[in-house]
Amino acid sequence: MLKIHRAEDRPTKKASADMFTGDVFQDAVLVGEAPSRMRATNVTFNPGARTAWHQHPVGQTLWAVAGVGRVQVEGGAVQELRPGDTAIIPPNARHWHGAAPDRIFTHLAMSEIGEDGGGTEWFEKVSDADYS
Amino acid sequence: MLKIHRAEDRPTKKASADMFTGDVFQDAVLVGEAPSRMRATNVTFNPGARTAWHQHPVGQTLWAVAGVGRVQVEGGAVQELRPGDTAIIPPNARHWHGAAPDRIFTHLAMSEIGEDGGGTEWFEKVSDADYS
Repeated sequence: MLKIHRAEDRPTKKASADMFTGDVFQDAVLVGEAPSRMRATNVTFNPGARTAWHQHPVGQTLWAVAGVGRVQVEGGAVQELRPGDTAIIPPNARHWHGAAPDRIFTHLAMSEIGEDGGGTEWFEKVSDADYS
Repeated sequence: MLKIHRAEDRPTKKASADMFTGDVFQDAVLVGEAPSRMRATNVTFNPGARTAWHQHPVGQTLWAVAGVGRVQVEGGAVQELRPGDTAIIPPNARHWHGAAPDRIFTHLAMSEIGEDGGGTEWFEKVSDADYS
């Protein structure tokens, strides 16, 4: 059976202050039912807002929708993201993503749970020094 | 390693007339590398344009980005899609999707290949009678 989730039926959620710095808003897109392993959430970061450091068992893909964002995998450079860009983060790579300091940023975050059903692992918040 | 595909580096492709009716444009988003099974493409349908009937081994998720679209799983009603709506099509369910007759439509199409690596199966085009 076709299942349709209407935009107006799923209110935007404020993201948890435990795992994000600044004001971040989440719109549910997909929690796939087996055999699907996909998860997708549309996330909007207010200027300067970002995730904490985290990692995913099968990696994560970010598709930039609006504004200007940032992404960094630990040990690499901070990279800028603009609408239409796709960032592919490898499995079990510590990383963070968020808005530029003076720009709103919206991306669709896509990931897959592991074969054992495992999901995101969260770590400490991103310091101002790492963010800049 | 973080991999970024820049929007300006991946030209929009015209979709094959074998599998689509009308003018349809595809922007690559993701072809996941193992262990990822994900595929994602941003697709824009000119008014009246649509896919042929097809099915996916692990189903398909459509996230409506802009305009007004249509989706139908065989045997069910034609449903309208608007920005922010998510349509979840089950595994191996024959279906089609596209624009409304008088509206452009853009959606992000997400799917997963099967455990055996199998992808989309394509069938006949959607008749004007089925489309209306």
